[in-house]
Amino acid sequence: MFLLDQTQRNYKLVIAYDGTPFVGWQVQPNGLSIQELLETNSGVLLKTKISLSGSGRTDAGVHALGQVANFQFPGLIDKYRFLKGINALLPQEVKVLSFDEVPLEFHARFSAVSKTYAYNISLEEVPSPFFYKYRYRPFSPFSLQKLEAAAKLFIGTHDFTSFANKCDEGSASYDAVRTVKRVDLMPEEWGLRIEFEANGFLYKMVRNMTGALIECARGKVELDQIKDVLTKKDRKLAWMAAPSHALFLMRVQY
Amino acid sequence: MFLLDQTQRNYKLVIAYDGTPFVGWQVQPNGLSIQELLETNSGVLLKTKISLSGSGRTDAGVHALGQVANFQFPGLIDKYRFLKGINALLPQEVKVLSFDEVPLEFHARFSAVSKTYAYNISLEEVPSPFFYKYRYRPFSPFSLQKLEAAAKLFIGTHDFTSFANKCDEGSASYDAVRTVKRVDLMPEEWGLRIEFEANGFLYKMVRNMTGALIECARGKVELDQIKDVLTKKDRKLAWMAAPSHALFLMRVQY
Repeated sequence: MFLLDQTQRNYKLVIAYDGTPFVGWQVQPNGLSIQELLETNSGVLLKTKISLSGSGRTDAGVHALGQVANFQFPGLIDKYRFLKGINALLPQEVKVLSFDEVPLEFHARFSAVSKTYAYNISLEEVPSPFFYKYRYRPFSPFSLQKLEAAAKLFIGTHDFTSFANKCDEGSASYDAVRTVKRVDLMPEEWGLRIEFEANGFLYKMVRNMTGALIECARGKVELDQIKDVLTKKDRKLAWMAAPSHALFLMRVQY
Repeated sequence: MFLLDQTQRNYKLVIAYDGTPFVGWQVQPNGLSIQELLETNSGVLLKTKISLSGSGRTDAGVHALGQVANFQFPGLIDKYRFLKGINALLPQEVKVLSFDEVPLEFHARFSAVSKTYAYNISLEEVPSPFFYKYRYRPFSPFSLQKLEAAAKLFIGTHDFTSFANKCDEGSASYDAVRTVKRVDLMPEEWGLRIEFEANGFLYKMVRNMTGALIECARGKVELDQIKDVLTKKDRKLAWMAAPSHALFLMRVQY
């Protein structure tokens, strides 16, 4: 499985998970996290405690098709055997899709250039028994035209304070400016997938933006109000976060 | 919702369900069935006991995208309001896709011309956290060529006694001859979907045929053995049924 040659090496994992049964990515005292599952089981395989850096937290209930994490280890790990071993130990809801050695300077969070999230909105008359856990079904009326217009407001470089929950604001370096590269509306047979790509997202930022988009599509909020709230940099002025169960971390670009 | 005009009418439902939490289609003393859920909730809406005829049973754990059932009722039911009402009462795992009045002579089981089932075989190196509940992942090696050759053996009109579990054999009219119209192998990104269409299927027949196909693909069973077992009309000679969780009743043709 591995050769302990005391040469520090760096390993990158791409991970998919169904977030339904977990407390989120990050280790928490109140339940099982994806990070804890991966650290514990990697530790079993490598016979030592490892410390995993994720590209970022995902909330309880949020899913991932391409979460990225890395860890350092003083030895050579057999890629094929690690993948087979870790996936045999992990529950069905969490799987490691790829495992590769990367340069020492690679860091899943700090090396990321951008991230893509997708939010699934069901517009089905009758929701599918197979996908209700992964889609949010808003009340009608629901205007795609209004949603499209509102989505454009988030594109570009803004201070997203109004669309971020407090979390690491305490730190001296807190900076709420992010660049949203695109908000794409992708029609699906069952509704709509909204893809967000940004150089980074603040805590709950995708769910907060999506919450505003949904309220706008439902005619509860006007475009000007979203514009205004974005300018005012005050979370209390904005709208509820959209539910976590319809959100997917799609990929992290490096 | 309905007008009780004492004119006997006949109604057809198309139903989708995730079979995971149920004891199967048919009412059972040991747990909740899909038929019971539909009868109970239709009864609540129509304020009378109704008796639902399904196109056929599905086993515990088997799913449906297009199960069909019908019931008679002495009045005119508002289609839109019934659909809305029944889906509001049903759990998320069971949904009525359509509801229509049909001629009195229509019977979900006896009027059926053919049925289509699909069995999902995962050939993914790493199984998806989102679909492991709906796909069966056989051990390797797994030869698609062998599976294809074996699938052809079932096509046509045969006595399928060797591929049916005992169930209604006791009845005087028991007849195990069925015509399998097609067994199509449909490659998917994640593996293989095997579609079976026949004028009717015996109890566990799809799972028993699939079990034999899988054993053949794995090199455990030869083509000639399947041919031989089909001829011998003895269930004890054949192989285990494939697991129920990867089987879907796709549609019923009339």
